Amino acid sequence: MIYSQLSVDSWAIRLEDGDDILLSLRKFVESKRVRAGQLEGIGSLKKVRLGYYDFETRKYSWQNFEEDMEILNLTGNVSIKDSTYIPHVHVALGRKDFSVLGGHLDDESEANMVEVFVRRLPGELVKAHDEKIRLNVLQLSHKI
Amino acid sequence: MIYSQLSVDSWAIRLEDGDDILLSLRKFVESKRVRAGQLEGIGSLKKVRLGYYDFETRKYSWQNFEEDMEILNLTGNVSIKDSTYIPHVHVALGRKDFSVLGGHLDDESEANMVEVFVRRLPGELVKAHDEKIRLNVLQLSHKI
Amino acid sequence: MIYSQLSVDSWAIRLEDGDDILLSLRKFVESKRVRAGQLEGIGSLKKVRLGYYDFETRKYSWQNFEEDMEILNLTGNVSIKDSTYIPHVHVALGRKDFSVLGGHLDDESEANMVEVFVRRLPGELVKAHDEKIRLNVLQLSHKI
Repeated sequence: MIYSQLSVDSWAIRLEDGDDILLSLRKFVESKRVRAGQLEGIGSLKKVRLGYYDFETRKYSWQNFEEDMEILNLTGNVSIKDSTYIPHVHVALGRKDFSVLGGHLDDESEANMVEVFVRRLPGELVKAHDEKIRLNVLQLSHKI
Repeated sequence: MIYSQLSVDSWAIRLEDGDDILLSLRKFVESKRVRAGQLEGIGSLKKVRLGYYDFETRKYSWQNFEEDMEILNLTGNVSIKDSTYIPHVHVALGRKDFSVLGGHLDDESEANMVEVFVRRLPGELVKAHDEKIRLNVLQLSHKI
Repeated sequence: MIYSQLSVDSWAIRLEDGDDILLSLRKFVESKRVRAGQLEGIGSLKKVRLGYYDFETRKYSWQNFEEDMEILNLTGNVSIKDSTYIPHVHVALGRKDFSVLGGHLDDESEANMVEVFVRRLPGELVKAHDEKIRLNVLQLSHKI
């Protein structure tokens, strides 16, 4: 993983061959203390572990794919939970026949080459476990 | 819908179980007077009404889906038309088998849980009805 | 192509019927000297040339589609190589039946109507040809 800082609160990252995508992003936001942020990227990966969350059974199902796929879009955000940095990332992926797969991105997904922009926002976003839906969710201060 | 303000011009929103996605975003940008803005989100929904616009017949066709789907990406912008706030939003959605659906997001689409970042831009973006293509389109000042 | 400037470093663009999407964006970022930037858009296109890069053969394969498709998401960035401006753009596209196609966007893709937000970042992002993977890649200053 290589990167350059573009402003006080923004960076461009390039993930290199074999880099674990989510783990690299976690490492990066931790090193820069991005306690609230947005992630946006495109590129290509060689291996991916996708998740799908079923809100009835309240369980993730997972599937691994090993093939070169274009990352049409990597979209995510950064928050913290008990002093751990949590990048939450979804991807849409283009196959060789231009059909598309996608889901929640897990560890063990490996880059061919990925360009990611990180934008740090002021303050922090905190997540906590929600008993009912059994996921970590953003704790936000106002209600409409 | 709950939210926190992160800077003068940015907010994080969490849509909760059953919230109408587009209606909530409309309500939010109206309350914050976001007259020009960008929307970016990920999450999961339980029900969606997708549109596809045919530029030949100049008509939308619509289809409803009722199943949990990952929101791989919610991308949109905010403008105003005759003092009405218009969030224009497209979604790419991941199914249980990791295949992907998508289209123009309409009212009556309901969240399981959606994390949306709103960025307000200075000034305002104005839309007006275009007779020829029969859509509301951005009125912008310069031509190249 | 028409546009308005929203802040010192951000613009909203509307691509019009028949505009070459990538060529228009290249022209735009060149005219505004966007030497580092992010692109984000939604809309509709009538014609697209999609690429898929195979990291084993190190060759792009290309396919053209001629049909109206919703642009669920246009995501990209801007860098420079030898004083040429390079918008690098991926798209996810929704068909009439709400299934999705996607890939690397090439020239000769034509808009029906596309709304793109351009965000210029400070400094510049430089690309150079990488002998090994045979692509232009971002040259960034730090390594983790």
